[in-house]
Amino acid sequence: MEALQQKAKVILVEPSGPLNVGSVARLCKNFGVKELRLVAPRCDPNDAEAQRMAVKGKSFLANAQIYSNLLDAISDCGRIVATAGRIDHGDIPLYSPEEVMNWSLKGPIESSIALVFGREDRGLTNQELLLANKVISLNHSSSYPSLNLSHAVAIVLHELYRSEAKSSLNRENKVEPIASPRDVNNFVKDAEELLLEIGFLYDHTAKSRMSKIKSVLQRAEIRAEEVALIRGIVRQMRWAIENQNS
Amino acid sequence: MEALQQKAKVILVEPSGPLNVGSVARLCKNFGVKELRLVAPRCDPNDAEAQRMAVKGKSFLANAQIYSNLLDAISDCGRIVATAGRIDHGDIPLYSPEEVMNWSLKGPIESSIALVFGREDRGLTNQELLLANKVISLNHSSSYPSLNLSHAVAIVLHELYRSEAKSSLNRENKVEPIASPRDVNNFVKDAEELLLEIGFLYDHTAKSRMSKIKSVLQRAEIRAEEVALIRGIVRQMRWAIENQNS
Repeated sequence: MEALQQKAKVILVEPSGPLNVGSVARLCKNFGVKELRLVAPRCDPNDAEAQRMAVKGKSFLANAQIYSNLLDAISDCGRIVATAGRIDHGDIPLYSPEEVMNWSLKGPIESSIALVFGREDRGLTNQELLLANKVISLNHSSSYPSLNLSHAVAIVLHELYRSEAKSSLNRENKVEPIASPRDVNNFVKDAEELLLEIGFLYDHTAKSRMSKIKSVLQRAEIRAEEVALIRGIVRQMRWAIENQNS
Repeated sequence: MEALQQKAKVILVEPSGPLNVGSVARLCKNFGVKELRLVAPRCDPNDAEAQRMAVKGKSFLANAQIYSNLLDAISDCGRIVATAGRIDHGDIPLYSPEEVMNWSLKGPIESSIALVFGREDRGLTNQELLLANKVISLNHSSSYPSLNLSHAVAIVLHELYRSEAKSSLNRENKVEPIASPRDVNNFVKDAEELLLEIGFLYDHTAKSRMSKIKSVLQRAEIRAEEVALIRGIVRQMRWAIENQNS
């Protein structure tokens, strides 16, 4: 059986340091992950400093796919794990790396897992965190929480490795697939449009209220068929509003 | 009680890369360890590259004690943990980071713990490994075992931290009150009524479809304020349907 780390995709969002990108490529090789993806990188992954740090992981740099936004980069992944170092994460629930990796192991065996890491200086935005199924907190010390990017990657990959090594036994086979972030996002857009039209939302309240809805869906680990159901509701509501009394 | 990491001393034996030494200083600050010690360093800890990587951990570089050999560097430590990445460690028994950290926690409370890391190119000698009470294996992938020095430090410090502070995270999370079952039920009844009226539900599908919605809310552990939000949506939908085009 293929190990979980072989289905892992490490995704760096707007990394700016070539030393970091190179170090992460080395880690991808160390832990045998599937691929490295970069979202709108602010440095060249083939820079000499990146190459120097990658050592035997250079192929991960050469083969790194580049995406313009996070949603595209995770669209083919079954389980999305993001990492947060910042304190102001709103009310998005945070888990320890161990809790999240144990959760990942319970997912459908065939699906791949995205491990998403944010910018060196300010991490991931709350909107990006809401695209994930689970968010890991890497807040180690309240006096100086900010880990170097590649150290965060090392810790998360190590946890993935050890939670897998510990128990490849308790695999549940019948697990419903979690909805793709794109489907969830499309639903949220549909719903937001309708709620603006009927005057439930205003331009200045839309973002924060829809974030609350997203956060409910995230916590529920909403499934593909459930998203289809609630999109159906939105469609029918729209129809009813347009056709009632006419 | 003082946390274990505050009694930890990170000891690097003959480090040659200033980037690594600086990165390790940053980690010492991240994880709140007591001090950084260097045994016969092959680079200057105050080099510009080291300073650059240390970020807020520069004081660990400035205060790093230098020793000529490992024995001197560990002589005041009660528990000695070394790390091995190489394969040819003779018959020295190796443990996982988790096993060793759980063992460390059982040591005398007052004694400090030395975490010893070897040279970038060839680790610790077998003689050096034999000075330790326990040796951690950081062999992750048989195809490419050699972790970067600072990544090895990150993983070991993270293990130390987590074995000590398991799941204190969730206690720190603000816990919002979960909605009462009555509120959830009232919402579901409101929504069901409306969905029947607009023809999204029929009498024979209502129960099973609304059960699916309930199940999402249950998994999300939906909160009181969130139920209020979605009840508001239902109310506004009803209003829109009754007043549109009229």
